[in-house]
Amino acid sequence: MISVFDHPWNGALFADPVCREAWSAERQIAHFVSFESALSTALERAGRVEAGMGRAAAAALAGFRPDLPKLRRAMATDGVPIPELVRQMRAACGPAAEAVHTGATSQDVLDTALVLTLQEVTDHVLARLDELIASLGELIERFGQNTLMGRTRMQAALPITVASRLLPVEAALRGHATRLASLRPQVERLQLGGAVGTNAALGADAPEIAASIASRLGLVPPSGHAWHTDRASLVDYANALALISGTLGKFGQDIALMAQQGIDEVRLAGGGGSSAMPHKSNPVKAELLITLARFNAGHAGLMHQSMLHEQERSGAAWMLEWMVLPQITCATGCSLIAANQICADIEGMGG
Amino acid sequence: MISVFDHPWNGALFADPVCREAWSAERQIAHFVSFESALSTALERAGRVEAGMGRAAAAALAGFRPDLPKLRRAMATDGVPIPELVRQMRAACGPAAEAVHTGATSQDVLDTALVLTLQEVTDHVLARLDELIASLGELIERFGQNTLMGRTRMQAALPITVASRLLPVEAALRGHATRLASLRPQVERLQLGGAVGTNAALGADAPEIAASIASRLGLVPPSGHAWHTDRASLVDYANALALISGTLGKFGQDIALMAQQGIDEVRLAGGGGSSAMPHKSNPVKAELLITLARFNAGHAGLMHQSMLHEQERSGAAWMLEWMVLPQITCATGCSLIAANQICADIEGMGG
Amino acid sequence: MISVFDHPWNGALFADPVCREAWSAERQIAHFVSFESALSTALERAGRVEAGMGRAAAAALAGFRPDLPKLRRAMATDGVPIPELVRQMRAACGPAAEAVHTGATSQDVLDTALVLTLQEVTDHVLARLDELIASLGELIERFGQNTLMGRTRMQAALPITVASRLLPVEAALRGHATRLASLRPQVERLQLGGAVGTNAALGADAPEIAASIASRLGLVPPSGHAWHTDRASLVDYANALALISGTLGKFGQDIALMAQQGIDEVRLAGGGGSSAMPHKSNPVKAELLITLARFNAGHAGLMHQSMLHEQERSGAAWMLEWMVLPQITCATGCSLIAANQICADIEGMGG
Amino acid sequence: MISVFDHPWNGALFADPVCREAWSAERQIAHFVSFESALSTALERAGRVEAGMGRAAAAALAGFRPDLPKLRRAMATDGVPIPELVRQMRAACGPAAEAVHTGATSQDVLDTALVLTLQEVTDHVLARLDELIASLGELIERFGQNTLMGRTRMQAALPITVASRLLPVEAALRGHATRLASLRPQVERLQLGGAVGTNAALGADAPEIAASIASRLGLVPPSGHAWHTDRASLVDYANALALISGTLGKFGQDIALMAQQGIDEVRLAGGGGSSAMPHKSNPVKAELLITLARFNAGHAGLMHQSMLHEQERSGAAWMLEWMVLPQITCATGCSLIAANQICADIEGMGG
Repeated sequence: MISVFDHPWNGALFADPVCREAWSAERQIAHFVSFESALSTALERAGRVEAGMGRAAAAALAGFRPDLPKLRRAMATDGVPIPELVRQMRAACGPAAEAVHTGATSQDVLDTALVLTLQEVTDHVLARLDELIASLGELIERFGQNTLMGRTRMQAALPITVASRLLPVEAALRGHATRLASLRPQVERLQLGGAVGTNAALGADAPEIAASIASRLGLVPPSGHAWHTDRASLVDYANALALISGTLGKFGQDIALMAQQGIDEVRLAGGGGSSAMPHKSNPVKAELLITLARFNAGHAGLMHQSMLHEQERSGAAWMLEWMVLPQITCATGCSLIAANQICADIEGMGG
Repeated sequence: MISVFDHPWNGALFADPVCREAWSAERQIAHFVSFESALSTALERAGRVEAGMGRAAAAALAGFRPDLPKLRRAMATDGVPIPELVRQMRAACGPAAEAVHTGATSQDVLDTALVLTLQEVTDHVLARLDELIASLGELIERFGQNTLMGRTRMQAALPITVASRLLPVEAALRGHATRLASLRPQVERLQLGGAVGTNAALGADAPEIAASIASRLGLVPPSGHAWHTDRASLVDYANALALISGTLGKFGQDIALMAQQGIDEVRLAGGGGSSAMPHKSNPVKAELLITLARFNAGHAGLMHQSMLHEQERSGAAWMLEWMVLPQITCATGCSLIAANQICADIEGMGG
Repeated sequence: MISVFDHPWNGALFADPVCREAWSAERQIAHFVSFESALSTALERAGRVEAGMGRAAAAALAGFRPDLPKLRRAMATDGVPIPELVRQMRAACGPAAEAVHTGATSQDVLDTALVLTLQEVTDHVLARLDELIASLGELIERFGQNTLMGRTRMQAALPITVASRLLPVEAALRGHATRLASLRPQVERLQLGGAVGTNAALGADAPEIAASIASRLGLVPPSGHAWHTDRASLVDYANALALISGTLGKFGQDIALMAQQGIDEVRLAGGGGSSAMPHKSNPVKAELLITLARFNAGHAGLMHQSMLHEQERSGAAWMLEWMVLPQITCATGCSLIAANQICADIEGMGG
Repeated sequence: MISVFDHPWNGALFADPVCREAWSAERQIAHFVSFESALSTALERAGRVEAGMGRAAAAALAGFRPDLPKLRRAMATDGVPIPELVRQMRAACGPAAEAVHTGATSQDVLDTALVLTLQEVTDHVLARLDELIASLGELIERFGQNTLMGRTRMQAALPITVASRLLPVEAALRGHATRLASLRPQVERLQLGGAVGTNAALGADAPEIAASIASRLGLVPPSGHAWHTDRASLVDYANALALISGTLGKFGQDIALMAQQGIDEVRLAGGGGSSAMPHKSNPVKAELLITLARFNAGHAGLMHQSMLHEQERSGAAWMLEWMVLPQITCATGCSLIAANQICADIEGMGG
């Protein structure tokens, strides 16, 4: 496996089971089906397909299982899985086929599925953030009044309390939770634009159809036009996640520095073993936080590179997003899990 | 000159005079003086220096002009200009020297000066954004009903109106203006933490002193503790600027594609001349928008790298911010100016 | 699946089966075994373990199959799979256990396995490069004398031949093949340093043992000291790969531009289908080349970030490398495969 | 000033006077003149201009001083300074004007001037590398047999000698010197391609003219075709520089870690002062090495982004290079200077 997140053993270190599940093939297919099914229903309501056809399609799609090998083969040529998926869905819907995907385009399905995934990721990240803020609060309660040496530019400056070091981290995380929550309406928006983002095929019914689908999927309807080529909300989302892992990178680096022999300002249970030096106990999770912060920093930059969609859709820019954004979500989730673990492992801070 | 922004001739292409002025030595010194002067006054009000000393110091600082060569020399050793600056300020204040910089540290001065600079930059960026939104609105009014070929994945798809291509850009820019304005209270915050960020030297008077300085400087007082090591607001700010240049990169790329012979969907006045082909008219500003978007994308990533402040202050992370953030502001300003110029140069769109 | 490379359907687009195989768990385990087995044999030859024990260990390791779930569990704590792997290997070797891993450390095993993987990747990349250079040569032979419009800064300049556009790409690829081949001795170096990179545990026998292992594995022995903390050869390797995908990104972008309606300078078979517009034929592979170039560009930068190993080993920097380098290899391989496909799909160029 | 390198006081910290001089307007103009003058001479030799005209032009150019304000103004429109420069040069050459710039294009002048600048930078970097390797050698001689604690993953592992920590750094720098020197023939290549890179205007005389100019300028003639759109040599060069600053970032980080109170494995003279804590001595130069390494890492990635030149010349990609490459050279030079300074400041290592 190429990615540490998918790797048989590395995956245990870079682990975020909830995030992995959110990006699984099963969930993605489920989101594709949810979109198409909501569209079929909405098309019927708007009178754009024969009465009964929308409901029939939605019913048929409820039991739809794609032929994955065929999907995979088509992907290699089409660059998106949707044309083949729609072919299979239409075949499954028999006479109701006309109510499937009408007026939509591949990007509508893929982007909507994406934000449904991000919705799950956000729930998860916010929950892990809450846990971590609570864990830091407990550490502050237990050890906050202990003393450690305040250090600036890697040099001993003046003694401070443990609370003085941890409170800014906790406050930063609270800010990140607020920011992420505030981005939800921007991120969790239905994509519906049709071939060139103008919903020309749906005509005057487009707003009503969009509202119906969005409501069924728990998403915000698009405001006026599709966001096919305006990826700012996704870049902003990636930025918000990278801020979380960035703050945790600072935290991890501090823990690793405090755990140094000669400094000894933190005692950690559960360090990593060494194959050559059985006496060692490595602050693996603290290092991991640094790694993930630097990884996400680079990927936040790549998300900005992916903003340059040419004209009404850029395959090149879009595919870059596919390569980068899932990794940012998992690195962030993994970072929160590791930070929570560190808090649990801390047996003493300061003195 | 190393930077295109400071370069004798390249600087004319990568130009943003307002931004350059905001980052000038004169303005930065003025901000240093404003901070120290407001601190002196506040110290006196709080009774932490002898009566009259704060006012005397502020009065002396009003006419203060630093010895720049000395500042420069000290910078090479100290890594910050403030210790030498404070030495010079104290010398200029005579008996009121005790009221200068008391309780503060270099980072308080530099970070506060930074956000005063960013305040000016933000005013400027928001004004240029407003102009650009208006210019795009005019283009849409003039040419919006014209037709051009909608293109997806670089291939002709279906005809659309010029408005269909421009409206998403305009909407994205409106979103960027809202985002940037909403970040102001986070960014425009006084820095005041003293040696290790705890304001230990100012004791119980710290909140009052901070409130007084912040009010005088038009900044938000810090909430509870200093943001010495929490750079999220600056990274978020950089992200907001890079989103602007990212959207403009998309716009520039579209203009360059539309200006191709054989496509001919935009007519531009004022293209760039060629030394070998006098017949050519190059869409230099459109290309520039692409360049600046990609530059800022990379630098947004570097801002995230600069979040990993160890302990109470990281020289390494902080200096990285100094290298990156000013460039992002200028690239963004330059991008807005170029985009406004392009709008003015457009003589026709679609057909 | 998080990564496009490991994804059930996206993986068909971002495909490089040889590269995936090279990074598979099976091959990695095989490399671990090869290293340990060669070490056991070398230890016996050098007289550092009892006669027969090295051979016995190597024999036992030949049939070794790890308990993967245990390996995975241990990874989560240790941050490396090797301590648990060695435990399992020693258990499998019975009385010859003393000849397993003696004098080595986790990094020796992991880094050596890495370069054995890169050896396979390099063979593959060089072979694909050769194919592609040949394919470009054929295109030049078939269409080289045809005319197309030379374009600079996206504007028609002067007519050129197809050969004039393709020859610089072909020449760049030849240069990349030479560069990559010349890096092999630097990259394909045994790692052997022991606990802190000094081979203290192997004493004066270290060079002989290293030479023996290196020879058995087809690697270059380390020169003097371990390269535990000197990752330059890997960063240089990543750079060489990203240069390949960079050149192909230029090629892909040119193809996509040439395929525009209105330009019509290339005819491509096998374009991608659209779910909304059956008439379209999208230059998916050409776009993919752009995507992969930009992805690798960002990751080349992250490889440089991973150079900052503190002291004798940095977990943080090392894990960043694990996250980034495999993806660069696959993106490069995928890029070469897509470029070869494009060459096969070209039915006409210029006119 | 926007850039730390050009800044009135920050410039003293981020200082590399030789590098700054190499990029100065004066030197760049001098390179432009050298190119044009060598071209004029070569044109005459090849019989492409009237006898005497080439020599006359070269003579006139010897005293040429550009009108910089005009150059600056034209740059804003043309996106390159050369059309206006050539206008001025031709005016200065009177009847010999026909021998100026004939057959060349802006990119020929700018790229050739660039590699002449890089030639100076390379001389300088190699000299500073030699000095640093010698300084490290001296440190090893003075302190190499002292003991310090070998640390892996930030944890005490086993005692090592100072030499064991410094030798890998020294060896890496030797490797970097070799690599950089070996890139010279690729980098220091004349650019000569004319309007679209094919030298069509010079016809069969192009190779002779190129050889003549290259020889006069101390450059390698291009092999076959221009490298207008093949930027691999420059990206490779940037990579080689970033490897240097990367290794020095590792060195700086080690120094900063060794200088911690409680670790105390290095004694440094000349630390930086603090405005709040006069007792402190900050390892400013060591931190600076970390900063510059991370800066260059990001910029190495951006150089890869700049490879995607579309068609025969991309203004967008080319301008990105202008923004990035000069900064990489200065960050590298500054990094070498700081590292040399640290070596001079070290008063003790290990114990």
